[in-house]
Amino acid sequence: MEMNLKDLGEFGFIDRIRPDTLVRPEGVIRGIGDDCAVCRPTRGQVTLLTTDMLVEDVHFQRDASSPYRLGRKCIAVNLSDIAAMGGTPKEALVSIAIPDTVPLEYLDAIYEGMKSMAREFDVNLLGGDTTSAPLHLVINVALVGEAPEREVLYRSGAEPGDVIFLTGPVGDSAAGLDLILSNRSREGQDALLQAHFDPHPHVKAGRIIAGQKVAHSLIDVSDGLAGDLGHVCAESKVGAILEEDHIPTTERFRAYCERFQVDPWRLTLHVGEDYVLLGTVPEASAGTIAAALKSGGCPFLPIGRIVAEPGIRLLSRDGSARQIHPSGWDHFPRG
Amino acid sequence: MEMNLKDLGEFGFIDRIRPDTLVRPEGVIRGIGDDCAVCRPTRGQVTLLTTDMLVEDVHFQRDASSPYRLGRKCIAVNLSDIAAMGGTPKEALVSIAIPDTVPLEYLDAIYEGMKSMAREFDVNLLGGDTTSAPLHLVINVALVGEAPEREVLYRSGAEPGDVIFLTGPVGDSAAGLDLILSNRSREGQDALLQAHFDPHPHVKAGRIIAGQKVAHSLIDVSDGLAGDLGHVCAESKVGAILEEDHIPTTERFRAYCERFQVDPWRLTLHVGEDYVLLGTVPEASAGTIAAALKSGGCPFLPIGRIVAEPGIRLLSRDGSARQIHPSGWDHFPRG
Repeated sequence: MEMNLKDLGEFGFIDRIRPDTLVRPEGVIRGIGDDCAVCRPTRGQVTLLTTDMLVEDVHFQRDASSPYRLGRKCIAVNLSDIAAMGGTPKEALVSIAIPDTVPLEYLDAIYEGMKSMAREFDVNLLGGDTTSAPLHLVINVALVGEAPEREVLYRSGAEPGDVIFLTGPVGDSAAGLDLILSNRSREGQDALLQAHFDPHPHVKAGRIIAGQKVAHSLIDVSDGLAGDLGHVCAESKVGAILEEDHIPTTERFRAYCERFQVDPWRLTLHVGEDYVLLGTVPEASAGTIAAALKSGGCPFLPIGRIVAEPGIRLLSRDGSARQIHPSGWDHFPRG
Repeated sequence: MEMNLKDLGEFGFIDRIRPDTLVRPEGVIRGIGDDCAVCRPTRGQVTLLTTDMLVEDVHFQRDASSPYRLGRKCIAVNLSDIAAMGGTPKEALVSIAIPDTVPLEYLDAIYEGMKSMAREFDVNLLGGDTTSAPLHLVINVALVGEAPEREVLYRSGAEPGDVIFLTGPVGDSAAGLDLILSNRSREGQDALLQAHFDPHPHVKAGRIIAGQKVAHSLIDVSDGLAGDLGHVCAESKVGAILEEDHIPTTERFRAYCERFQVDPWRLTLHVGEDYVLLGTVPEASAGTIAAALKSGGCPFLPIGRIVAEPGIRLLSRDGSARQIHPSGWDHFPRG
């Protein structure tokens, strides 16, 4: 007989998820099981706080991915926000609202996924909230990170002349999403699906960039390249010129777009949830960042320049430029 | 014409809620608007972390309360968790999933309520996540607090011989809920409804108790007195004897139970969301706590004793005792 949540009760369920939640016990005074978790901040570091909510039928379909990958992604999107500040992720709190149509084994797999992603990045699951839900599964993760104050990187520091760079290719995640939404065959497209369902946050690259203390700004690409570069430009009161030729994509992404006649620019610029980092750095220091990333095994991929004039322009190989709209994903698009 | 979220867009909405979110700017390096909020922990204090998710049709009905009180309660339940550790609340992150049936003015009122409660307790709203939802409104708050490490109070410290005390009466919130669920007239019952819809977290009392460094354990009463005392007993591996005569209730609570023939013990022991604190302290130090609470304008209400034998017994005036079940609210009650 299938066991469900009612057989366990709320506190039985909490006991069930407690094992393997504490992967870095130093600094933790109390984990799951009291009114609050209690931990000791690292002396001399500032605290980074972020939170992300994933809602069924908005961010995910219960049957489109696996619950294990869903759990991993819930943690990953928050890790990426810490990476985008140049920080080290430390402690996670997970709130979950569970409809009674969700079997216990599905929940177990979500938590297995969350724990595996947390373990990969040395993050403790220190607590959360567990409740029932009328219809849709909702998962919220709040993540606490740390960084030396002088190393924290913001969206607002970009300056004209800065080189704009990425820490990885863009487009795969958007192509994976396009594949699902268009109901095309998933045959042979594992890598695109993986990019969408199980993104890898660039925490290591973020720490390397921040540690050099020469970058001007940093953000993660979660709303499409144009959307996130648009945030940097707006907050820094600058514009940007991107070189079409330099936007890094994978061979499989280009093959997908060609085969199905999908506009690659729509996917890379306006959709992608690639969770690579986008940084800006003065030209004179670009080599420092590039070398540090390289010796850490991370790519440094220059894609354009910050300029004083507002707006984002895309420069093609023949030298012509076109204005692109700094729009990414908006949960409440203007009607 | 009524304005809605689609007229604003996600980032327009974030700009709309940003004013008055920073009530204690010292220590905050970056508030709403970047990938993470950034703040400086107070030297020598440990960090307290808690989170609570409120789901429509589980924790609240959209039309039963006002959105303003709903916003206040979302913050209050988290403040109470910080109070239950003896801590000071500092920074809040709010995630919200919004169905398109929620008008903008309803949302504005929720945020007004959250801000008013946060302001009362000197808490910054430092960020969050805003997303659409298919049907039900969901609000998650994550709260960061602080306390001197030696003052933090846990559920697990209770010892036989300890006096068990409350910092306020219980039952009003449960009576307010009973009133709503039974569809009785709300006429003249404002105080009971207020207790349920707009509870007051005992942050001040928690700090006073913790500051004396003599209490053994502390918890907030959010699941009913028996449920929460049950947590203390389980974590501390002790039992408890409560004196029926000493359980503090209000005149209006007793009048409600009498008038509608409602069992007062069911409400006080197994339902209440009163958010008063329940503490235990060695008898020799009870006076210290009582005096400190009194000079802070907070009540000290002894209700029984911690004993070595497991279980919770309720002692009536005639000296007879009955075992009570340590059960409170369970989101997934065993079927």
